[in-house]
Amino acid sequence: MRDAKKTPLYEKFAQELEEQVRSGTFPPGARIPSIRESSVQRGISFSTVLQAYQMLEDRGVIEARPQSGYYVRRQARKRVPEPEFHDLQADPAKVSIDEVSLQLIQENFRLSYAQFGVASPDPDLLPTVKLNRILADLARDTRIPHEVGMAVQGSEALRIQVAQRAFSYGCEIAPDELVITAGCTEAMSLCLQAVCQPGDLVAIESPTYFGILLALEAQHLGALEIPCHPRRGMSLDALKFAIENHPVKAVLAQTNFSNPTGSLMADEDKAELVRLLAQRGIPLIENDIYGELHFGERRPRPAKSFDREGLVLLCSSYSKDVSASFRVGWVAPGRFNREVQLRKYAFNLRTSVLSQLAIAQFLERGGYDHHLRKIRRAYADKMAGLSQAIVAHFPEGTRITEPEGGYVLWIQLPDQLDSVALYQEALKAFIAIAPGYIFSPAHKFDDFIRLSAACWCERSEQDLARLGVIVKRMLGQNR
Amino acid sequence: MRDAKKTPLYEKFAQELEEQVRSGTFPPGARIPSIRESSVQRGISFSTVLQAYQMLEDRGVIEARPQSGYYVRRQARKRVPEPEFHDLQADPAKVSIDEVSLQLIQENFRLSYAQFGVASPDPDLLPTVKLNRILADLARDTRIPHEVGMAVQGSEALRIQVAQRAFSYGCEIAPDELVITAGCTEAMSLCLQAVCQPGDLVAIESPTYFGILLALEAQHLGALEIPCHPRRGMSLDALKFAIENHPVKAVLAQTNFSNPTGSLMADEDKAELVRLLAQRGIPLIENDIYGELHFGERRPRPAKSFDREGLVLLCSSYSKDVSASFRVGWVAPGRFNREVQLRKYAFNLRTSVLSQLAIAQFLERGGYDHHLRKIRRAYADKMAGLSQAIVAHFPEGTRITEPEGGYVLWIQLPDQLDSVALYQEALKAFIAIAPGYIFSPAHKFDDFIRLSAACWCERSEQDLARLGVIVKRMLGQNR
Repeated sequence: MRDAKKTPLYEKFAQELEEQVRSGTFPPGARIPSIRESSVQRGISFSTVLQAYQMLEDRGVIEARPQSGYYVRRQARKRVPEPEFHDLQADPAKVSIDEVSLQLIQENFRLSYAQFGVASPDPDLLPTVKLNRILADLARDTRIPHEVGMAVQGSEALRIQVAQRAFSYGCEIAPDELVITAGCTEAMSLCLQAVCQPGDLVAIESPTYFGILLALEAQHLGALEIPCHPRRGMSLDALKFAIENHPVKAVLAQTNFSNPTGSLMADEDKAELVRLLAQRGIPLIENDIYGELHFGERRPRPAKSFDREGLVLLCSSYSKDVSASFRVGWVAPGRFNREVQLRKYAFNLRTSVLSQLAIAQFLERGGYDHHLRKIRRAYADKMAGLSQAIVAHFPEGTRITEPEGGYVLWIQLPDQLDSVALYQEALKAFIAIAPGYIFSPAHKFDDFIRLSAACWCERSEQDLARLGVIVKRMLGQNR
Repeated sequence: MRDAKKTPLYEKFAQELEEQVRSGTFPPGARIPSIRESSVQRGISFSTVLQAYQMLEDRGVIEARPQSGYYVRRQARKRVPEPEFHDLQADPAKVSIDEVSLQLIQENFRLSYAQFGVASPDPDLLPTVKLNRILADLARDTRIPHEVGMAVQGSEALRIQVAQRAFSYGCEIAPDELVITAGCTEAMSLCLQAVCQPGDLVAIESPTYFGILLALEAQHLGALEIPCHPRRGMSLDALKFAIENHPVKAVLAQTNFSNPTGSLMADEDKAELVRLLAQRGIPLIENDIYGELHFGERRPRPAKSFDREGLVLLCSSYSKDVSASFRVGWVAPGRFNREVQLRKYAFNLRTSVLSQLAIAQFLERGGYDHHLRKIRRAYADKMAGLSQAIVAHFPEGTRITEPEGGYVLWIQLPDQLDSVALYQEALKAFIAIAPGYIFSPAHKFDDFIRLSAACWCERSEQDLARLGVIVKRMLGQNR
């Protein structure tokens, strides 16, 4: 230890605080005293405390959250490698969901114990009370909810809200350039119908959300898997090779916190993606459903914000942050606006009016920003909790993603453990997980599982520990 | 005139009453005094009045409505021939919606003066107040509306209500054999996806609802127009010829009050239709959306009630009688249950939960039967009003359907007047109609128009009279 006399006061204070963090007095995610509080309690100057905090921030021990204070960094977990990434080219394939996948997908949605399986939001993190108050207000107005003349495009009030928010993250979209849909999946389905013909080839992320595979199959489309880096997202080299060598008619990507990897494409990669596709006139169907659930300071931009050709069809919904049951999403179809409207009209005419109006009013006056700040922190904490528990309970050799948003983790199991077998064993112990098997048409991720942190709470650690025991047992390791 | 002394008292009273009907004291649709009232006022016996009323009923002057009394028959209008019917075979054709149709369809939905154009229900005939009360109740229960674990199939409470009602009109369907959809159009779209591949040929009614043509086009399906009699529905001879000579993969039909003709297939024709298709294993996608809006005593059965093979996929919704904006429909997919669920999952996961629960509760305890009795009478009156106005204001040679349910009339214009030209002229006078042009992929009904009686009221007669003037002017007739 250095001589205390030579150590500046701020450094001494920082050391003390760091020790308290190490000892668990301030566990990961905990709020530490404000600068003012510390200054008063310690009898040291405001600027000394500030210097100490900045020092700890630089070291990655704590982090500042605007308008909230300083917190112990969640990423203070033992570092574990991220899943392996192989930038291998794939062959185009007709999407055909096999019986095993179907069973798995359907079963997962029927389970009453869905703790790590389905990527649905935590019901406690939805603004139910506020939405209900809005509903009750709407129910008092006999005219609005039963209005029938509403256009295929959906509520203008809601489209205005969507457009305003999109402007804040770099997208210039007029309300007229939006179509309201029954969720993000419907938005993507309509986009696929608008830009593809049966038999066309679509480039997708690998791994990708299995709902996308179901949508491709339903529309008789082929899939070309583009390797997706667990942190940086779709490999642009691989995509470039793909569009140069195959008749790719559209690209589907979740640029912000992709499901299942949680990968986030850098802005320059998004710009490059848009440029690459514009050169060949290939539409990008961008799924931004997790975009608002970022843990960092800045709301990441969608690729759409770099689009000058109207070739990006941006899809999102309020199913992850406002209501999973209202089924309200939207699409900004760019130059395919008319086609998307027509497909919407042909498929189901319009979206449930009441749900649209309730969401619009919540966005207008329900404190959406405040709500988002709250749930971003909550999901960041849940992700940290789940992540630490995996490190603690899963065997050596397990690899885990470390996403900067969303609420799912993508885990590579040691020794190529079969995820479907693990799924079956876990089910017997009443634990639901999503096996990697269903996230690729060619089943490239059989030794992966996706765990949802959405409903993580203290009790969850027991379940996760039991899952760890099962994994070890299957690997032939002793408990 | 016969000697009064020899005329029985009941006959004398009947003659007097009939004259009052002729003179307009009791106009079509008016309630005449009850038997008890007449008996008391006239000082004649109950049975004499009853005899008189039965006599007038036999002559078709009045009609008894259960639990309601006696009414002047609406069909007391001047008889006008029904539209011509040509049982001609058509050739299969790829469905491709031309620019004119698209413009017409989209324009019609944007118009603020939609009096005869769109087949939306009269907002005053929807149970808005009751639905709003239910909504307010639901909004008080914080759990229900935001429940997320709901299965693809939709609310079980709602499926139970649908199954119970279907049982009352001859269909044995278990709640598990139903899938809730976002309206009837979505139900049909999902059925088409479940039973057809792109390029397949579907036999449709001719004329048919243009929404069906949009759905066929969106799914890259071909159409074979089967002539549809304006009163009796799809020609079974033509259908038989069609399935013997073309690779028909599915049949789409509105067996009860088809849109636009209002035709109603007889029970024996429905049974024969089902038998005919079962022989060849061809699925029937049956659209029963107008089935509850019958004017006669009995709720007509769907063809589904004759199905023993699970080959009939019965589709309907609550958009015509409960809420046009909630977007809640359903399908009983027979043996294609799993395929339909999968397509629903792939397209938009599930239907807005709140809308489903509100409709379910209305069906459980909102007096649906009472409501239906009320709106059936109201639509019957509106149809009679519109029908009589057409007879009064349209030129000689106009032919009109006389449907026993629903709320649209199908009108053949004299001298092959062009319906699109009429549509354009009417628009200039702020009158919306649906031109026959859009009800057939081969535009077989260019001299027809469809008029909706849904929002008919006394004021409407002026608009209709103005439309009549336009028709006469276009035919070169003087006013």
